[in-house]
Amino acid sequence: MSNPLHSLFLGPKGENEQLLKELLDSALQTHLHWRRTYHPEDPSPIAAGGSPTPAASAERVELRRHFASLLLQLQRSVPFFSGRYNGHMLSEQTIAGQAGYFAAMLYNPNNVSGEVAPVTTRLEEEVAHLLAEMIGYDPTRCWGHLTSGGTIANFEALWIARNVFYHPVAASLAARSLGVDVSVSLPDGSVAMLGELDLWPLLNIRPDSSLDLWEKLWLAAPRPAVENALRSHSLATLGYQDYNMQLAAEFGDPLPAGVVLAAGTAHYSWAKIVAALGVGSNQLVFVPVEAKCRMDPDALWREIESLTSRRIPIMACVSTCGTTEQGAVDDLQRILEVRARAERELGVTFHIHSDACYGGYAASLTRAPDGSRHTAARLREICGGAHWPTDQWARSIRALESADSVSIDPHKLGYVPYPAGAFLLKDRRGRELVATDPPYLALTTSRENGDAPVIGRFIFEGSKPGASTAATWLSHKTTPLNSAGHGRIIASTMKAARDLYALLGSSDFSPFRVIRVSQPDLNIVCFLLHHPSLDTLSALNALNETIYRELSPNAEMSAPYMITRTRLTSPAYDGAIRPLLSSLGKDGESYQKDIAEGLTVLRATVMNPFSVDANPDYLLGLTDAVRRAAISFLGESFGGRQLVREQANIQREVDVTEAGLFRVSRTGIQVGSDTGEKR
Amino acid sequence: MSNPLHSLFLGPKGENEQLLKELLDSALQTHLHWRRTYHPEDPSPIAAGGSPTPAASAERVELRRHFASLLLQLQRSVPFFSGRYNGHMLSEQTIAGQAGYFAAMLYNPNNVSGEVAPVTTRLEEEVAHLLAEMIGYDPTRCWGHLTSGGTIANFEALWIARNVFYHPVAASLAARSLGVDVSVSLPDGSVAMLGELDLWPLLNIRPDSSLDLWEKLWLAAPRPAVENALRSHSLATLGYQDYNMQLAAEFGDPLPAGVVLAAGTAHYSWAKIVAALGVGSNQLVFVPVEAKCRMDPDALWREIESLTSRRIPIMACVSTCGTTEQGAVDDLQRILEVRARAERELGVTFHIHSDACYGGYAASLTRAPDGSRHTAARLREICGGAHWPTDQWARSIRALESADSVSIDPHKLGYVPYPAGAFLLKDRRGRELVATDPPYLALTTSRENGDAPVIGRFIFEGSKPGASTAATWLSHKTTPLNSAGHGRIIASTMKAARDLYALLGSSDFSPFRVIRVSQPDLNIVCFLLHHPSLDTLSALNALNETIYRELSPNAEMSAPYMITRTRLTSPAYDGAIRPLLSSLGKDGESYQKDIAEGLTVLRATVMNPFSVDANPDYLLGLTDAVRRAAISFLGESFGGRQLVREQANIQREVDVTEAGLFRVSRTGIQVGSDTGEKR
Repeated sequence: MSNPLHSLFLGPKGENEQLLKELLDSALQTHLHWRRTYHPEDPSPIAAGGSPTPAASAERVELRRHFASLLLQLQRSVPFFSGRYNGHMLSEQTIAGQAGYFAAMLYNPNNVSGEVAPVTTRLEEEVAHLLAEMIGYDPTRCWGHLTSGGTIANFEALWIARNVFYHPVAASLAARSLGVDVSVSLPDGSVAMLGELDLWPLLNIRPDSSLDLWEKLWLAAPRPAVENALRSHSLATLGYQDYNMQLAAEFGDPLPAGVVLAAGTAHYSWAKIVAALGVGSNQLVFVPVEAKCRMDPDALWREIESLTSRRIPIMACVSTCGTTEQGAVDDLQRILEVRARAERELGVTFHIHSDACYGGYAASLTRAPDGSRHTAARLREICGGAHWPTDQWARSIRALESADSVSIDPHKLGYVPYPAGAFLLKDRRGRELVATDPPYLALTTSRENGDAPVIGRFIFEGSKPGASTAATWLSHKTTPLNSAGHGRIIASTMKAARDLYALLGSSDFSPFRVIRVSQPDLNIVCFLLHHPSLDTLSALNALNETIYRELSPNAEMSAPYMITRTRLTSPAYDGAIRPLLSSLGKDGESYQKDIAEGLTVLRATVMNPFSVDANPDYLLGLTDAVRRAAISFLGESFGGRQLVREQANIQREVDVTEAGLFRVSRTGIQVGSDTGEKR
Repeated sequence: MSNPLHSLFLGPKGENEQLLKELLDSALQTHLHWRRTYHPEDPSPIAAGGSPTPAASAERVELRRHFASLLLQLQRSVPFFSGRYNGHMLSEQTIAGQAGYFAAMLYNPNNVSGEVAPVTTRLEEEVAHLLAEMIGYDPTRCWGHLTSGGTIANFEALWIARNVFYHPVAASLAARSLGVDVSVSLPDGSVAMLGELDLWPLLNIRPDSSLDLWEKLWLAAPRPAVENALRSHSLATLGYQDYNMQLAAEFGDPLPAGVVLAAGTAHYSWAKIVAALGVGSNQLVFVPVEAKCRMDPDALWREIESLTSRRIPIMACVSTCGTTEQGAVDDLQRILEVRARAERELGVTFHIHSDACYGGYAASLTRAPDGSRHTAARLREICGGAHWPTDQWARSIRALESADSVSIDPHKLGYVPYPAGAFLLKDRRGRELVATDPPYLALTTSRENGDAPVIGRFIFEGSKPGASTAATWLSHKTTPLNSAGHGRIIASTMKAARDLYALLGSSDFSPFRVIRVSQPDLNIVCFLLHHPSLDTLSALNALNETIYRELSPNAEMSAPYMITRTRLTSPAYDGAIRPLLSSLGKDGESYQKDIAEGLTVLRATVMNPFSVDANPDYLLGLTDAVRRAAISFLGESFGGRQLVREQANIQREVDVTEAGLFRVSRTGIQVGSDTGEKR
């Protein structure tokens, strides 16, 4: 066991079975002890020692029968644990995550309130604190909690951002109705009286200044009156329809609807979120991406200028840290600089949310065990990369600390079981704008500091498993969120992805040619295969769709390797598609005319923690499997697999399940064996 | 083991430990077998047999250390498993639920797509089918899926209802832009041409007629053109602000904002949901409740008349089956009749959603094993109730089959671990209006029928644990959703709640008097204590708040029994508060003037599956504990506990932890013992 990381996971062969069993057993034993020592004088309602009645026996027979069926069915699951799986964002889970989940599930706490989860709500505060420290939020000012997943975390981000965005309007009308006025900071640094501001400047107040208005109004008028007046003018109370009428009545021109800026790479949950919130998908404005699939900061600036010239207010900008499709890490620092420039030069500002559901845990790599930040140079030493992580990458991750909100999924690169998302808000006051009081949960807390017991006031979900918190807590306590702990897993998968990227570049795919999207920012590698006979973009896409299908999980799990694919759509991805097609030379040019169809690219998420030093070399095996799948496409296209195999000058193929090891090397794929052809 | 239900749960003393252990062990063993037989020729990345490195050993030490800490902390959880806990909606979980969750969690499927959860997405379809059959939906027309909880299920209901509500408007404008027209059914049974309808009738089309417009338009114009035109006129695309402008431009008067009707008893999630959706909390119109805390159908009719006279359209009406506070079951049949009358007489209609998150599983009791419905008379035989379940109750549960959508939480009365909510939609076409296509998940399916693999298109969440599905599936397969299966648990807790209700009525609480809210519709009993010395409503509330605090979980879990409390707020609950206060006679009259303060009532959720035949009798113990807690309040109020104990003529109290059994009987609380005073 050369790599200490290897003791963190059950292992592809269940190598750490004894450790997991030991933990599960002690969880169950202590749980039973807890039950048995709680009012031990209470007699058992279940006659101990007696034989079960026939009816009770029948129940057990049914349970065992259906359980056996469940276990049998589960055998047809996708083997995420294996290095052969590099598909979606799923891999091993830590033993800590598995055992922590199980241990707490026995107690079944509901983390909506300390009243029903006194232990795990405290642990949730601690988890939020650990995540906040990792990205660099000030724990005394921020707020965070776990969600069922990234969509809910992103939803809460935009829900709060919208309320903060419209808060100055409510404050202005509230102040007017109370006959008071207060000062407010404008994005260009000047200060104005709230009552003097027209709608446009009111919709361009920085989030922190927007939230300051609350306390300013409390100082100017009695607090209950302020609360009432704010409430009666808020969007949450009025709803969009009446709110719009209020805007038109009070400000003349209600202005066009506020927009949300996002890169074309943004997760599809954003489309759901803007539709559900009533913002409307027309108001989800896609900022073009550059060749590396990152949001183009120059394009962002141009978009802001254009929106400003049309007097269209910007509610929020969603930047991504680890896009779902390519793992691309936006240059968040430059995006923040664009906003600062917009504040200075245009008087325009907005909430910046980082959707770091996938990539957020990369921040663990940037932290030294003492909590300080590593320099980019030190990061390169740690990772063993001559040129990576780049200065820009380090700066982009560091910039998370300046985003107004961040979403991070423990059930992705946190390696804990579903369901575990997380939402972090830099300025905790924002949550008050979405607070709802549950009547039946205690609104007071016996604790002097902290507010975990009433978490339900501020979150969207009404119930959530404390078990998920315990899983995340245990995993992060065991393997701290720094470069000596969890960061090693991140570094190892990033290295493996770079190895795959390099291998794709150095391998001989003839008669195919491989085109790689870009160096992975994290651990997702996108690429496509090309063959000179493919004279349309459709045909090119069909080749890669076939490779994908061949390398997809099927009912028998017979695919030797598993990856997935995505479609780079036009125009959102034009910045990435055009250079790819251009690299094909003349062929590529002819494809450009069909760019509206989009480009299918293969996608390998290299997040197995054992990938980097795997033996056999799964990356080589994957590369080989991709070529074989491509050949099968040609076979189908040209009337016979055998024919094409000959064309491709492949004589005999080794069956990996038989030979036990690949006859391949990193200097090129050498497929050849005399063990007989078998696929 | 007299009761076969007793083999379904781990048991308060862990009596069924061996059964759970056996299942956990076989789950782990089959999982390990699965790992080990997947490409067994792949060597292990973890050197087998070798000693762990010092670093790996250190990792294990850390894991064990933090795990021990977690287990120790978990010992301070709330003992939901015990008959002493009758607080929130939490109790035992079935062994099937626990083992099913654990078994599937090892595979960590994500039920957003069949690509990553080929097994558990199929099981989710099956679970949805079982729930649909239980409530009476046509499985060939309906759709259902699991969610993280009731809030998300309710959110999806209103999200879809809103889109269906506005769909005729989009259809009308789409038809106009395409130069076609189609017929549409109006709620009074007549038929009109869509193009002739003004905004008011367009916002009063029955949900099924609204969805019919889709196919009608496809017949009238090319489908892609129809889809485009619909999309460009839909609220989801335009967002509320532009949509409102469209309404004003196309129809002149955009009409007031659409409202959502809900009883004052509605769960607080509805306030969040209308705020988040942009509907606005002003548009959440509370319909008064009657004395039993059910929505008052007459008041509903008056509200509809009033809204109609003001030309305010109704988006949806939320009826509750099992209110969170009182377990009240709305008379859904009468609510449906009110809608039918509104359709006939006023030409007004709306979506009816049943929030059956808590009470939905009561439907299992109404099903015979062959799937047929029991009559109310037969239900009384089954439950052993002379007068319950009532005809009205049976009719109300049966009416779920006519609601347009229903939410039901398996993690409440389904007795499976968190997280497990469920959403059911009667007409599956509605989900298309909220569909979003994820680019990276396969949009095609190899299956000829069914659509589980692409479930992510239609649901709000982007990831969810397949383990939760497995838990629900196994629990419901083992204990079917009928009166011979799961219904027995429901009947048993309903009976226990009625026993508690009766016991409260027959017990001597002197010097206090008990006032009970109403016979429980399900298994929640609400009541309050009164003392003649309390001359204000505040003082009365303070008494009951004190009882609640004394009987709440604390850090030491030293409360002998645990219940919770809620506040009946005014005016929403006036229909329930006024008769309660009146029953106090002259005292009550004097409280009425402070009714705005609301009334605190104690709340016991009697859902422990062992309650009905528990020994010791936890219901008696609870009643006793309530009186003791009340006495402690008097003690605090009048300067010394001891004094009041004497006043109350209680000489010595038995310590239940010492005596082992209560010295109490159902004919009245007889507290007395010579074992020494000790509390």
